[in-house]
Amino acid sequence: MTASDLLSWRRQILDDELRAAVDRLPGMLRRIAGYHFGWWDADGTPVDGDTGKAVRPLLVLLSAEAVGGSGIDALSAAVAVELVHNFSLLHDDVMDADQLRRHRPTAWSVFGIPQAIVAGDAMVALANELLSDLDFPWTATARRWLNESMIELCAGQLADVAFEQRAQVDLAECISMVEGKTASLLGTSCALGALTAGVDADRVELLRRFGLHLGIAFQLLDDLLGIWGDPQVTGKPVGSDLARRKKSLPVVAALASGTPAGAELAAVYAAEDPIRVDRACELVELAGGRDWARTRADEEMAAAVACLDDANCVPTARAGLTGLASLVLHRNH
Amino acid sequence: MTASDLLSWRRQILDDELRAAVDRLPGMLRRIAGYHFGWWDADGTPVDGDTGKAVRPLLVLLSAEAVGGSGIDALSAAVAVELVHNFSLLHDDVMDADQLRRHRPTAWSVFGIPQAIVAGDAMVALANELLSDLDFPWTATARRWLNESMIELCAGQLADVAFEQRAQVDLAECISMVEGKTASLLGTSCALGALTAGVDADRVELLRRFGLHLGIAFQLLDDLLGIWGDPQVTGKPVGSDLARRKKSLPVVAALASGTPAGAELAAVYAAEDPIRVDRACELVELAGGRDWARTRADEEMAAAVACLDDANCVPTARAGLTGLASLVLHRNH
Repeated sequence: MTASDLLSWRRQILDDELRAAVDRLPGMLRRIAGYHFGWWDADGTPVDGDTGKAVRPLLVLLSAEAVGGSGIDALSAAVAVELVHNFSLLHDDVMDADQLRRHRPTAWSVFGIPQAIVAGDAMVALANELLSDLDFPWTATARRWLNESMIELCAGQLADVAFEQRAQVDLAECISMVEGKTASLLGTSCALGALTAGVDADRVELLRRFGLHLGIAFQLLDDLLGIWGDPQVTGKPVGSDLARRKKSLPVVAALASGTPAGAELAAVYAAEDPIRVDRACELVELAGGRDWARTRADEEMAAAVACLDDANCVPTARAGLTGLASLVLHRNH
Repeated sequence: MTASDLLSWRRQILDDELRAAVDRLPGMLRRIAGYHFGWWDADGTPVDGDTGKAVRPLLVLLSAEAVGGSGIDALSAAVAVELVHNFSLLHDDVMDADQLRRHRPTAWSVFGIPQAIVAGDAMVALANELLSDLDFPWTATARRWLNESMIELCAGQLADVAFEQRAQVDLAECISMVEGKTASLLGTSCALGALTAGVDADRVELLRRFGLHLGIAFQLLDDLLGIWGDPQVTGKPVGSDLARRKKSLPVVAALASGTPAGAELAAVYAAEDPIRVDRACELVELAGGRDWARTRADEEMAAAVACLDDANCVPTARAGLTGLASLVLHRNH
């Protein structure tokens, strides 16, 4: 079985389980959730929308299998993780006033801001409800980790917002913000999968670290696309992160570079005027921010793969995990 | 021990436990949460603020004791309920753009909208984290009920928002909205308390129904104060619900009254012009909305007390529950 076959098969099982979970929501909550997931339009008519890559729940299933467990046993944890991730997307889109998500109008722009906030809240409750009654040896830990990770996610989002308003952000605190905002839930996804397989704590920790490194690589790539991504493909205007003065990793690396371009970029960010995006892109590149981010992403990916080696993974599932990682990292949107 | 002594003693235990829980949140999440709870100002300096009545967690403890259990065993459930309630306040204040909460600027108006949304999200995760590891016979059910109630709360909030945009709302659907928005979490609070005491399902259900009836009475009173409350005491402008065309229970009763005043009120609500609040107040009263709400609140309270009689409650805890109910119902803010 190729990595791609493995992924599609898992994906089908996951989608069925996720739809069954969302069907438990009443009325409009279900409608908004299903719209957000790309299953139906605003009126509830089924559509064949982009439903996202389901990276996190696939990581749960594949991590379980990678250490000799069963993806089927881990399904509820996988669905819970995907609900928590999508709650954060719903709220993020509101907070960033983003109009598009997966090439469709965001839920808040279709249904209203209160509606999108509340639908996100309900997804969190649903995720916890799914895990509330489960009585495997691992379920108490899974519940704790999922909610701890959600708190780290919230702390990371707060830091991200705060950085936009601050003059100085150093690279270490920026990476720590990314660990909370992005890497934590990916690490927890992998750890949860391994946990369901009942293996020792060291192997669970290796899978968590695989997910953490993958998460940082993923955010670096996302930040690069936020500056140099093709608007036709990303669905966002070119340089959208720069235009809103986001302190993404390549930008912070450029600002910290000690180069003349870094200093000019700092002046551009500090000024009141609208950002000239083409020049700001150039400055990040001249200051070495682009190269730094690419190199660092490669390093994080190598560290992630080393964790899989140390964890002595089942080959097919390992191929699935690395296949998923390259899907994520070689995406262009 | 008087009901008031009982309540203050419980309150102290609860506050300690709630502060210990919130202390687990990192950095700014903790700061925003503590500001919202009235413990400190925006900079983190301790203040002696209004910390609210803690109705829901007190209901948990007193309901446990009312059926022969221990309030101490129920403490985590009580704190979890209070966190879920306060998450909903944080998000409600954002969604309604309310500037004041307990006579202080709302968290979003001090820290920002994204900050208040994210702090609310973290409270939900914290509530679930508190219950994640607990291993009493009742904890799985408690987790499930708490999250089910949160979904009902979300559905009620959505209905409330939707009603403001609809021309026609009938009284039955308005009461059903209130059951979700307000009564569900109060009913769940009482049910959770009784559940922790390990009594049979019938007694748990009686306590839940006590909380549901109390919740509807509570919302009726809240709606009356939203129209006729003293702005000095409520901290809101007189007729604030009418000014924003809210379809609160007295308004819906007036609209459904078949009276000339009801018809005039319907025309006022349907028009594009700003509402003349004094006339609208008069119309709700003339159409019988005010009397209806008062009578219905009394009926709900009588039904609530009948549930306590049927549940054969321990007298001191019963006195605490009825004492708490009258605190809630005879409040003027």
